[in-house]
Amino acid sequence: MDLINRLLRHDPIALARLITRVENGEDGYEKILKKTYHATGRAYHLGITGPPGAGKSTLVDGLVKRLAGKTKRVGVIAVDPTSPFSGGALLGDRIRMTSLSTNPNVFIRSMASRGSLGGMARATKEVALLMDAGGMDYVVIETIGVGQVEIDVVDACDTTVLVLVPESGDGVQAMKAGLLEVADIVVVNKADRDGAEKLVREIRAISEMRDKKTLWDYPVLMTEALYEKGIDDLAKAIGEHQAYLESSGEYVEHRKQQVRRHIQSLLEERIRCRMEAKLLTGNKLEALVQRVLNKELSPFEVADRIMRSR
Amino acid sequence: MDLINRLLRHDPIALARLITRVENGEDGYEKILKKTYHATGRAYHLGITGPPGAGKSTLVDGLVKRLAGKTKRVGVIAVDPTSPFSGGALLGDRIRMTSLSTNPNVFIRSMASRGSLGGMARATKEVALLMDAGGMDYVVIETIGVGQVEIDVVDACDTTVLVLVPESGDGVQAMKAGLLEVADIVVVNKADRDGAEKLVREIRAISEMRDKKTLWDYPVLMTEALYEKGIDDLAKAIGEHQAYLESSGEYVEHRKQQVRRHIQSLLEERIRCRMEAKLLTGNKLEALVQRVLNKELSPFEVADRIMRSR
Repeated sequence: MDLINRLLRHDPIALARLITRVENGEDGYEKILKKTYHATGRAYHLGITGPPGAGKSTLVDGLVKRLAGKTKRVGVIAVDPTSPFSGGALLGDRIRMTSLSTNPNVFIRSMASRGSLGGMARATKEVALLMDAGGMDYVVIETIGVGQVEIDVVDACDTTVLVLVPESGDGVQAMKAGLLEVADIVVVNKADRDGAEKLVREIRAISEMRDKKTLWDYPVLMTEALYEKGIDDLAKAIGEHQAYLESSGEYVEHRKQQVRRHIQSLLEERIRCRMEAKLLTGNKLEALVQRVLNKELSPFEVADRIMRSR
Repeated sequence: MDLINRLLRHDPIALARLITRVENGEDGYEKILKKTYHATGRAYHLGITGPPGAGKSTLVDGLVKRLAGKTKRVGVIAVDPTSPFSGGALLGDRIRMTSLSTNPNVFIRSMASRGSLGGMARATKEVALLMDAGGMDYVVIETIGVGQVEIDVVDACDTTVLVLVPESGDGVQAMKAGLLEVADIVVVNKADRDGAEKLVREIRAISEMRDKKTLWDYPVLMTEALYEKGIDDLAKAIGEHQAYLESSGEYVEHRKQQVRRHIQSLLEERIRCRMEAKLLTGNKLEALVQRVLNKELSPFEVADRIMRSR
């Protein structure tokens, strides 16, 4: 358990090794999480999401530099397969050097997108916990906001930034995809391109139409991440959202909600495993499936029976 | 139970009424599904998916006309919120008349996208079962292929058609989003536009790279749905895929897999309900959440405890 003690003393090498174990779901990985959980809760979790090609990585690069400053430690998790951090070059992207990789206060980790989407969501949240326990002041999670899983990941962050670009589709599409629901701050990147102001207006109009659950109204900012334009304003908006969460009491409520969801997803996973191990092994399920195909039973009746047999 | 008997005698009015009950999850809706399940299994299930604006509805319009011909009955489920069938006009689309609405052999149903995504997936599959029991020869499900839920829906179909357009992003993006994984046939619609042939080549190249799980290699077709070009070839390709499934034995295997997944999703839903009702009510969960926030327990230990207490 030397590695765990080293992690708790903020050793980045121990952090990197433990992340690998957790990400791979190696035997005993939950023990690592149990033994480090008490040290979590300090880091501020930031989600950055948006469609491919929105320039998220460039934005993250500039933003993390500002968050880190001279004294803060920042962990970056790149879930986006097109991100240069996560080896997006393999997918045909050109290699972009990031200025972060040489900053000793910045710890970058990309998630391999092997395995199931659900497994990816689990691993991402758990790696964020390890970074938190490992002394990061900020944990920044970059995802592609296309599916429910990615939305779940960023929804668990304290502040979520949605990055759009004029050509990435209109605001109505972002709304349909559920992206605006999870956004605390909306950024229109590549704001020098045609259609940027129209997109800003659209998103503001949607914001006015929607049911307001909180007093926070997401700001819509324009950035040109490649030229580092607007990044200071973004960092400021993140700080304002953080201050809002704390002063309104939503921060505590939000953390509670995160814990509730975490417990629930762990329970679902454990129940699924137990069910698969005990009830659905061997020929039992197959025999029932065959009876359903023969129309002797419906799937609803099979589910009822298995539930009664527990 | 008069409505159920009428459904089983292929009465469209009974079908419409029962669909409403099932879609709304009204009390006793599972009884409807149990009592009609024995009459399912006859319909061929066709999934049509693709990004917004790909022209899926126009394609469905032409395709359904051909599937129906003079004698076949076709049920259409529009899950796509941009579809004119599902009232997409409300979202700013112009109203498009479809030639299907006056065809007595075609039964169109749009799914309201209220409620949760998971609920939507459940309801869509169950409405498809009702249409099957109600005498449809084909059930066509039109979805927007953006999230895991939509992928689950079309994955449960016998044949899935992925509709892309030159400007809807490249083939690599479709691959990343998992869309090509579920496609049995790929259609490049609006094939008169720039980039159509390039997209076709890309998708064929991806097809050659991927691990082949079956002997079926998805054809890549070009259509111009608005001018009814290529629709006959699409109908033919669907027939070929159906013949392939039957001759290879994959059809039976696929149906088994559908039943397995259906049972599993029903079990997960039931277990979630039971767990929420019995274990997580009142202050019990809240007290545990508070202990997690106090760092007295980790979420992992809470999940372990609840599992032991079952």
